[in-house]
Amino acid sequence: VIMPFRSLLKKQQIIVNLAKGIEVDTLLTVSGVLEDILGTSFDNIVTLSGPSHAEEVILGHPTTLVSASKNENAAAKIQETFSNRTLRTYKNDDILGVELGGAMKNVIAIAAGICDGIGYGDNSKAALLTRGMGEITKLGTSMGAKASTFQGLSGYGDLIVTCLSKHSRNRRVGQAIGEGHSLKKVLGDMSMVAEGVLSAKSIHQLRLKHKVQMPIHEAIYQVLFEGKNPEHSVEELMTRSLTSEI
Amino acid sequence: VIMPFRSLLKKQQIIVNLAKGIEVDTLLTVSGVLEDILGTSFDNIVTLSGPSHAEEVILGHPTTLVSASKNENAAAKIQETFSNRTLRTYKNDDILGVELGGAMKNVIAIAAGICDGIGYGDNSKAALLTRGMGEITKLGTSMGAKASTFQGLSGYGDLIVTCLSKHSRNRRVGQAIGEGHSLKKVLGDMSMVAEGVLSAKSIHQLRLKHKVQMPIHEAIYQVLFEGKNPEHSVEELMTRSLTSEI
Repeated sequence: VIMPFRSLLKKQQIIVNLAKGIEVDTLLTVSGVLEDILGTSFDNIVTLSGPSHAEEVILGHPTTLVSASKNENAAAKIQETFSNRTLRTYKNDDILGVELGGAMKNVIAIAAGICDGIGYGDNSKAALLTRGMGEITKLGTSMGAKASTFQGLSGYGDLIVTCLSKHSRNRRVGQAIGEGHSLKKVLGDMSMVAEGVLSAKSIHQLRLKHKVQMPIHEAIYQVLFEGKNPEHSVEELMTRSLTSEI
Repeated sequence: VIMPFRSLLKKQQIIVNLAKGIEVDTLLTVSGVLEDILGTSFDNIVTLSGPSHAEEVILGHPTTLVSASKNENAAAKIQETFSNRTLRTYKNDDILGVELGGAMKNVIAIAAGICDGIGYGDNSKAALLTRGMGEITKLGTSMGAKASTFQGLSGYGDLIVTCLSKHSRNRRVGQAIGEGHSLKKVLGDMSMVAEGVLSAKSIHQLRLKHKVQMPIHEAIYQVLFEGKNPEHSVEELMTRSLTSEI
């Protein structure tokens, strides 16, 4: 099955990946899955990511993207193709960091929704986003991604746009859980998929594999899959031993 | 005037600074002003910062802070004092970075308001916050602050809480300007001070002094003080030469 697919690709043909996620069990990002199928010698894979609700792109609202690839020429080609007066694309050679940020932000979006469901305000949400991104940066860098990528458009940028949005499915799932419903009940009631639920599983596996302490993500996992009470989890997080910020 | 003030302080007495800003012309942060008055030999100065609307702290919503000082014992003492079941404080030895983040975020809040006033959505705001914080990080590190501080609670955390809030004075000033009013008219109509207007001036001076390219902040300065059209500035920012993210 594998060789014929590779043989369909022309030389210099670029694959642009718009999908986000980390495959459960294999723990591959989407470009990792493509590499697995096509072989690592094919490096014309570009992941296009960043804070970009399609509804606003269509309206011509100024929007920024990241074109990430191990192959700089491919990244530059896609950067040029996706830049005009309202769309501005930046290059980044850290495709792993860009993809990890895009997948992980959905988990924090669920947690932001849980905050809303409990009735917490902006202080709690800002703490969650910032400390959550700190954990993601720690995991990502231990996997070989760059810290600066998580500070950029595919990291904080995408996280901010997701958590600002009232329309995010991940946030809505979180809100219902924060209001006291079980994950099973919430997913049963929705017609759409909330990617963050699966990403929470992959991140749980990655965290154990790379032995990285991620207390917020551990709490989210326990709330989602082990029925732990969200308010109780928050209190545990707030009363851990005091520490330095970095 | 100076010596008597210093002599009023007992040994081991700690000054906790809650004020934010960069003094125009001297370009000192608030702890810098205190050092200027008390002498650098007095290092028991702690700046307490982070995403913390007072209204939510009173309600017991989980809130996180940073206790920053050159003196680790002083930072630890204030950290312990301001930690309980709903308030969690982290130490940070980068007091300059913590204070720069707190002051600079008000300028971005004005710009976020301008986006609202023009009618842009979340994509544009996420781009502004992320690229704006990138500029602040570049300026801060060139002044000796740590990049990681801007990624933390006093940087991105405080920026997020300010830009989420509908009550921010800085955001309201920006919104009126985005709707087409002049800064003079807007400030004349308000009874309160919008700190971001002054910080925009100090950052302009810092940017020139440290020779750091900060196109977003330059545009904000031109819109505020030179009557430049905001939508025209945004178009110029969007159509600059294409570049790498970092």
